[in-house]
This record gives sequence, structure tokens and C-alpha cells, in this order.
Amino acid sequence: MTSTLLHAVPIALGDRSYSIAIGTHLLDQTDTFASLPKGSSALIVSNTTVASLYAQRLHDVLAQKYERVHLVTLPDGEGFKTWQTLNQIFDVLLEQGCDRKTILFALGGGVVGDMTGFAAASYMRGVPFVQVPTTLLAQVDSSVGGKTGINHPLGKNMVGAFYQPLLVVCDLDTLKTLPPRELSAGLAEVIKYGPIADLEFLDWIEANLDQLLARDVQALAHAVQRSCEIKAWVVGQDERESGLRAILNFGHTFGHAMEAGLGYGEWLHGEAVGCGMVMAAELSYRLGLVDQSFVQRLKNLIRKAGLPTVGPVLDNQDNAGRYLALMRVDKKAEGGEIRFVVIDGPARAAVRTAPDALVREVIDACCIPVQ
Amino acid sequence: MTSTLLHAVPIALGDRSYSIAIGTHLLDQTDTFASLPKGSSALIVSNTTVASLYAQRLHDVLAQKYERVHLVTLPDGEGFKTWQTLNQIFDVLLEQGCDRKTILFALGGGVVGDMTGFAAASYMRGVPFVQVPTTLLAQVDSSVGGKTGINHPLGKNMVGAFYQPLLVVCDLDTLKTLPPRELSAGLAEVIKYGPIADLEFLDWIEANLDQLLARDVQALAHAVQRSCEIKAWVVGQDERESGLRAILNFGHTFGHAMEAGLGYGEWLHGEAVGCGMVMAAELSYRLGLVDQSFVQRLKNLIRKAGLPTVGPVLDNQDNAGRYLALMRVDKKAEGGEIRFVVIDGPARAAVRTAPDALVREVIDACCIPVQ
Repeated sequence: MTSTLLHAVPIALGDRSYSIAIGTHLLDQTDTFASLPKGSSALIVSNTTVASLYAQRLHDVLAQKYERVHLVTLPDGEGFKTWQTLNQIFDVLLEQGCDRKTILFALGGGVVGDMTGFAAASYMRGVPFVQVPTTLLAQVDSSVGGKTGINHPLGKNMVGAFYQPLLVVCDLDTLKTLPPRELSAGLAEVIKYGPIADLEFLDWIEANLDQLLARDVQALAHAVQRSCEIKAWVVGQDERESGLRAILNFGHTFGHAMEAGLGYGEWLHGEAVGCGMVMAAELSYRLGLVDQSFVQRLKNLIRKAGLPTVGPVLDNQDNAGRYLALMRVDKKAEGGEIRFVVIDGPARAAVRTAPDALVREVIDACCIPVQ
Repeated sequence: MTSTLLHAVPIALGDRSYSIAIGTHLLDQTDTFASLPKGSSALIVSNTTVASLYAQRLHDVLAQKYERVHLVTLPDGEGFKTWQTLNQIFDVLLEQGCDRKTILFALGGGVVGDMTGFAAASYMRGVPFVQVPTTLLAQVDSSVGGKTGINHPLGKNMVGAFYQPLLVVCDLDTLKTLPPRELSAGLAEVIKYGPIADLEFLDWIEANLDQLLARDVQALAHAVQRSCEIKAWVVGQDERESGLRAILNFGHTFGHAMEAGLGYGEWLHGEAVGCGMVMAAELSYRLGLVDQSFVQRLKNLIRKAGLPTVGPVLDNQDNAGRYLALMRVDKKAEGGEIRFVVIDGPARAAVRTAPDALVREVIDACCIPVQ
């Protein structure tokens, strides 16, 4: 089958610029990787789930370009985003005598991408790498921004680097094997870009949600493209996350509390973000920044995308207190102050604090199932 | 006692520029740290040897600027430059709730500097850090270049980052407690800058070697300043080590083979570099690039500095073969080709390969004690 490149999103970051290729059958085509520098060896990093589906195909294509193509298959799951797993990548690199020109290929979802990126950032103080995200979440989220890292027993993503890939390949065919729950989780991050930056895109998502859920290639291609473009626009202005970039965390402050409170893996990240956006919209409303109809509109879309809209109860005694405590230890908090991303106008987000009492009202309202 | 700032060497790296302060009594002065940004907390990273000598003094000064000043004391020695030790730094940072504005202070030699720098590069994907090197080697070598990292069981410095400090403070008083062997090891890296870049500096070292060995403050200040200036000039042209910067490895290719072959810690890094420079000079001579008198001059200086000039026998059967095998797996080797830094003119270094047979002659000549 011939490949079809539907979109190419350029990410302009000076001498670290790269391109996101979005299309079908990209994985099997030598053309896809034509722009990469030559080198004597390549290493594909994948996980047990994805490797069995796609590693051989990627291996066969890369073997036409690189003398030696190695593969390391990591265990699957957020719980394995640890130093011990990362070290498996270093072990293979060193055992195989890989030098500074070895290119790493991250074939999998966000966990594989984050770990491969950090391994590339750190091996011999930096070797090139390519992202081949195989989940919708990874395609729209990890493709742009250069965030890499691992978890520490005391906190998520606490150890890592900002490090840019040479190329990102979003092969939409890989989304066909994605479990429905993970497709919905990816849609949460797609939806996010509407309220924070582009109301036309929000309209488009509403109009095309059925096609997206049916994995229509043209619809997915546009969703990935537009999400990457918006993220690139934001990150391009704030690569090291000192200001504007924080708006990308819309829904994440509440969401992280859910993930941490439930135990990581109970809810998918995208599910927590979906539900977190409902809370963040509710907070925006109670701060007088948006009207009730906006909250309802976003909530309906999130529900139709197959995501939870009612927050989990994390503590039967003092649920809001538990949310607040968890949000205060978030990486984005500063000196114990929680910084919320709110919507303060059409397609405009802002970062601000809010009185605890108001946040408690939001949590109480959003954790009780009401229509 | 009042502090005396004898030199300030500016390191120009765009928005990552910083300054190296060289002087006496710098450690105890608030002025020394006046340029640093405010923040709620600081973490001093040191080792068991250095902490007992200087950590309290640094702590007391920093406590005037930062609300909370934490200390983590690592075990002393190259053998502890591991992920496990690095993780002790992350543990403290997370246990103490340190945020992205926490400043790390590396108080110690190269191992402490490398690990603290990598911890700073990776914690929350990057927090600021300050180098306070307390060995001559660290003052002239780790102050410039931004190399940070840890060892992997399969190779030295294999995992790390290029990451620049906000400030480097070389307090020459800390050199008074340095064991004589470590002073000599530091002088090896000072001497190195002569043949590769500055013959006047080589003359100066020869004329002032006695003062340096006697730890005369003015002599040490000039040695540290000029070494940092030369290194900065080289690194400024090649921050990511793609070309010119390789000349800083004069003596290191042979030296690394000695360290690896003897087992790390047997010889100090500077001792191996000292002896490695004799071999690299001998190779330069046998390649027809310098004359015999230059080799003898450098050898005399290295011997007078208290460093070994006769290479260790690493294998009784095939010593040269063992050196060659070890040099072929060096990080700087490319596709198994050993790249030697040679002197190819007055104060001019170049990187090149050499026939194995010639390298064998050099090793044989330099591992037999002759006058």
C-alpha cells in the first residue's frame, strides 16, 4: 500500500526545528525517514503491546537505512516509567556499542515517548531521536513540546529534560488498534485546544465527533494537525514553560489530583483531564469569567467523547480537602499556591489562583452526579 | 576576614552566560552570591569529606538569602557517581517540597559537581545551580563546559546532560585542605592548556611551578583564571562538543585507557591525564609533528608537578593491545576508530587517527621506565 502524507506541521524552534508528519501507512515507507541523518545504528524503543503490532514493520524500513537496528521492548504501563526501565535502554545502547550518532525511535504511547526522549537527552549527553506515537494522546500531546522524563516514587514526571525530536511520525493507521477508552482519552486533549485557543476548532470537533469516534482518517488527521499547530504556537512562545505554556494545563490541575488520589492507572490521564476540564470550566463560571451555557456545552462534548464528567470522590470525610491537598503538591504549584488554568473569554485561557472556599464549591458541585 | 575577588572570568553563552569568581574567602561572603535570583529554598550537595570542612560556612551565608537551606551529603568517590547516589539528591528535593526555583549548590570536587549538575538539569526538567568547586581539578576543568552526568556500570559519564551553572565560585582557600596528590592531579589539567593553546602560559607554569605546589594564592589564581579562559574560548566555539572542543581531550585518550585498565580510582584522573599527555606528545613526535625536545620539555614539567610519566603496564602479554582495545571503546571513538589529540605546531592541537603499529610503538616506549 502506498503511504499518504496528509499534513506536515512545521515546528519552528531555531536550530531545533522539526516536522510532524501526519498520514497513513507512514510507518512502512522509507520516504518517511528520508530527512534523517545517516548513522551506523538505530534503536527502536517500544513496549510489549505495541512492539508485537508494529516493531517489525518499522525495523524493516529502518534496516534499509541503518546498518544495525536494535529493539528494546519495555513493559507496558505508567507504573514502569521508572529509572529501572529507563536503564534498560541505556543497557542495550552500551551493550551494542551505540555511539553518539545512534538514533532512537520511540514507538508507542506517551510513556514510551517520555522515556525514549529522556534516554536520548541523557545518553552520552544527547543523541538524536524520533517520535512515532501510536496513541491519539501521544500524537496530539507528546508530538510538540519536548517534554521527556520519568516518574520518581515521590512524584510524577519529576526527573526529565526538555529535548526536541528530529521528526515526529503520526501514522493514523496505528490508531485502528487503539482500545476505545484510549481513543476517548486522546480526544480529551484534542477538545482542550478549543476553549483555550480556537473556538472554530471547538465547533469543528462538535460537528465531527462521530467521525472521530469512528476513526475516520480525514477527521483524525485534521484533529491531530490542528492540535499540534495550536500547541506549537503556544510552545513556540514559551519553550521552557515559564509563562504562556501553562494554559496547556487546562483541566490538568484537577485532573492530576484525580490521578494521584485514585492511584495512577485507575483513570487514564485523558479521562482525568476530561473531567478536570469540566471542573476548570465550572471554576471559570464561578469566578464570573464565562457563563453557564459554556460550561454545559463543554460538559456535553466531553461526555459524548466517552469521557467522565463527574469527579471521583477521593475522600468520604473531606473530599474537597483531599483535592486541595493533592493540588497543593502539584509540580505547577508555587510556594503551596495552586495555579488554576481558567477560561476568561472566548478561546482565551489565563492562569490564576482562587479562594479555597470557591474551589471547594466547585469540587462539591462536580463530584455529585447531577444533570 | 574580608574576601578578595582576584579575577572574574565571564563565560559568554548567550542567555546561558555566567561568571567564574576566583579569589579568597569567597565562600563566607554574601556578596559572592549577590547576583543569584531569590528563591524560597536552596540545596547544598556535598560529600562526606568536604561537607565537614565547608558546608556549615556556605550554609550560614546562604541562610541569609534563602528561607530554607537544605544539605545532602553524598558518599565520597568516583565509585559513587551512580544513579543510586543521584537519586539521594532527588529524594531530598522531593521530601522537602523543593520547587522549580530551588537553587542547587555543588560543594566539592568533580564528582559532586557532575552529579549536582545532572540533578539540576533533570529535576522538574531543569532548576538553576551553582558550582563551588573545592579541588584544583574541578576549578580548572568543571567550571567551564557544562558537562554533567553519572557513570553507568558499562561506561564512565555515559548518562548526563550539557547544562550551565548560574555562577561558579572558585575559593582558593579550599585548596589548602587538598591532599598533595590531588593538587598534582589538578596541575595536569592546568599544564594541558599550554601545549594545546598558549605557549606563554606553558612558560609561566614552568617558571611558577614551585609557587603552585606551595599553594601560593596569586599563582593559583592566575593558573585557574588562564585555564578557565582558554577552556571558555574553546567551548564558546563548540558548546555541544562536535569539533574543536575535542582538543581539550589532549592526553585523555591514553589516560582513559589507563584509568579503565587499572580500575577506576587506582590512579587519579589527573595522574592518568598527565601520563597520557606524555604519550600523546610522543605520538605527535612519531607522526613528525613536533620535535623530541618538546616531548622532553613536557615530560619534565609533568614529572616536576608530581605526576607519573611512565605508563602502567595493563597486560603482561600484550600491553599495547590492551591499551588499543580500551581506547577503541572510548566514548570519543567513532565506529571503532580511535581519535587522538596531537600537538601539530606551537600551541596548536589537532584530532587525528594513527596507524595501530605506530600507536603500539608509542605505548611500548612510554610504559618502560627510561630517562
